[in-house]
Amino acid sequence: MAAADETLGSLGEGAILRGIFPRLPDAASALLGPGDDAAVVAAPDGRFVVTTDTLVHGPDFRLAWSGAHQLGWKAAASNLADVAAMGARPTALVVALVAPASTPAAWLEALADGLRDGCATLAPGCGVVGGDLSVSDQLTIAVTAFGDLDGRDPVLRSGARSGDVVAICGELGLAARGLALLFARGVDADGHPDARAAAGLRPEFDRELDAQLAPQPPIASGVAAARGGATAMMDVSDGLALDARRLAEASGAVLDLDSAAVGSPLALTGGEDHALLATFPPDVPLPSGFRPIGRVHDGSPGLRVDGRPFDARGGWDPYADWDGGVG
Amino acid sequence: MAAADETLGSLGEGAILRGIFPRLPDAASALLGPGDDAAVVAAPDGRFVVTTDTLVHGPDFRLAWSGAHQLGWKAAASNLADVAAMGARPTALVVALVAPASTPAAWLEALADGLRDGCATLAPGCGVVGGDLSVSDQLTIAVTAFGDLDGRDPVLRSGARSGDVVAICGELGLAARGLALLFARGVDADGHPDARAAAGLRPEFDRELDAQLAPQPPIASGVAAARGGATAMMDVSDGLALDARRLAEASGAVLDLDSAAVGSPLALTGGEDHALLATFPPDVPLPSGFRPIGRVHDGSPGLRVDGRPFDARGGWDPYADWDGGVG
Repeated sequence: MAAADETLGSLGEGAILRGIFPRLPDAASALLGPGDDAAVVAAPDGRFVVTTDTLVHGPDFRLAWSGAHQLGWKAAASNLADVAAMGARPTALVVALVAPASTPAAWLEALADGLRDGCATLAPGCGVVGGDLSVSDQLTIAVTAFGDLDGRDPVLRSGARSGDVVAICGELGLAARGLALLFARGVDADGHPDARAAAGLRPEFDRELDAQLAPQPPIASGVAAARGGATAMMDVSDGLALDARRLAEASGAVLDLDSAAVGSPLALTGGEDHALLATFPPDVPLPSGFRPIGRVHDGSPGLRVDGRPFDARGGWDPYADWDGGVG
Repeated sequence: MAAADETLGSLGEGAILRGIFPRLPDAASALLGPGDDAAVVAAPDGRFVVTTDTLVHGPDFRLAWSGAHQLGWKAAASNLADVAAMGARPTALVVALVAPASTPAAWLEALADGLRDGCATLAPGCGVVGGDLSVSDQLTIAVTAFGDLDGRDPVLRSGARSGDVVAICGELGLAARGLALLFARGVDADGHPDARAAAGLRPEFDRELDAQLAPQPPIASGVAAARGGATAMMDVSDGLALDARRLAEASGAVLDLDSAAVGSPLALTGGEDHALLATFPPDVPLPSGFRPIGRVHDGSPGLRVDGRPFDARGGWDPYADWDGGVG
C-alpha cells in the first residue's frame, strides 16, 4: 500500500507500476503478461473479439461521486459487456490510463483493485495483460477488452428476423435513476457534485447508485444467449430505445416493444443499463435471465412501441448533454 | 470531406464516425470490422500479441508542431514498433480518441488518413478494426495494436546471453535532434511552440523533423530478426541507454556498447527513436538492416559503454520532464 503523500508525480511511472501490477487480475489466457513490449494472449478459437471503451473525467464520471474502486470496476464492466454482447467469453483487458501527476498512488492502487474485483465477479478468469500510464491534467481510462468465441459464430446486431422474440437480460432504467438522483440530490448548495451529499443517498438508494457507479452486466448470459440460438444481440449502453433502433436498422426489420413488459419510461430511454438486448427464434426457450419485451416484424426498419413508431432519442449523448462540469 | 466549419460538437459522434470509417485502413485480418459491439480478428497462430500506447496533448505532442496526419501516423507507428519488437507481424489496431468538441471534422479525417498511410507504409495489411470516440478538453489518442507470431516464439527482453552480439536496426538520435530543434527554434519570441517557426526549419531539417513527428520504425525487421535467431529484442522508445539497461536487467546480463559504433551522445540518450534493439548469437549473420553496437557479457546486470558502467538516465520522462505546456 502506498503512503498517503505518494503521488504519480513523486513516485514516477516505474514505481507506480510496480505497486499496481501485483494488484491487477491475472488472465488465464495470458501466455505473457505485462512487462515486455507487448503481451501474448491465447486465442484458442483462432479468432479474437476486441472492443474499446473510454471513461473520461467530466462527461463520463465525477470524482465526487465515483471512487477509484468503482471506476476500475465500471471501466472493466462496460468493456466486458461489449464482449459478452458478441456471444464471446471475456479473456483479457489492456488498460491505458492518463492521470494528473498529483494523483495519489493509493488512488491508482484502488483503481487496480476495482479492475480486479470487477473481473473476478463478472468474468472469472479474465484479467489485465498490459497497459500504459501517461500523465496529463485530464483523468482518462481507456480499456480494450478481448474475448474468445469457442468456435461459435459471433452474434451480430444484424441478425434479427421477422417473428423473432425480442428479449432483455439485466436491469433497465436503474442506472439512469441513479444518475438522476446524483444530479438532483448528490450536489452541494451550488449544484456541484458533492461526495457527502451523494453518500447521504445510501443506503436508501444503494441499488440505483450501484447500477450507475459499479454496474453488474450479465456477462455470462452473453455466451448463454449465443448457445441458446440468439439471432442478434447488443449491449444496451445508450438507452433501450436508441440501441433497439440501432439493432432494428442493422437487421432491416421492425422491433416492436411492449411498453408494459419494458416497464417505466426511464427503462425505455435511460442510459448505461449494460443489459443485453437479444432476439431469439419464436420456437426456442429463452435462456435463463432473459425476459420477452417484444417482437420482430417486417416493415420499414425502426423502433415501435405498442405498434406505434417511437422516435424519441433517449440515452446519454456526451456531445449534446455534457455541460462541461467535472466535479 | 467535411466542411470547414463542421466540428465534432456540431456533427455529433455518429456523423463523424461515418466520415472517418471509409478513410481508415482495412485490416486483412478483420473478420468483422467496426460497427458492432466488438470486432472479430483472425488469430491464425492461436495466440495474439497486444500492446497499448497513448499520445497525450502536452507531454507527447504539440499541435503547433504536429499536424493531424502526422499524429495519426505516429500513433500507429509507435504501437506497430512494440508489436514488431516481439517478432510479430502487425495485424490490426483499435483507436480510442478523446477530442474537444471544437475539433474540426476535417482534422479528425486527416488523423484517420495518417493512420491509414502509416499502416500502409509500415505494415501493409494491418488496419483499424474498431475504436471509440469521446469528447473532452484534452486531446488523447490511445491505440491498441495486435500482431501474429506465425508459429514462432515471441522474442522477449530477457533472452540475451553472454557472447551474444548487440545490434540495432533504425536511426538513433535523429528524433531527439528533431525535438531539440523544435524546442530551440520552432518557437515564437516568448518561447511558445509556433507552427510558422517550425515550418521554417524545413527543408534543412526534414529528416530530423520527420523522425520526431512521423517516425518510420523498421517494422518488417522485427519478424526478420525473429527468423534470424534474435535471442532478445525491444523497441527503443525511451533512449538507447535506458532501454538497453532494461534489456540487460531483464536478461540478467551486461550489455557493453561500443560508443564509436553507437555514434553521437544523443544516439545514446535521445528518446523516441523507435529503433529495434536486439541480441543475436555470435555465429549467426545479422539480418539485413541490423548493425552491431556491442556485446553481451556475464556480470552484475546493467549497461556499460566501452567497458565502463553507464548510469546516466537519458530519454524522455513525462513525469520528470514535462513543463505543463501544451502548445
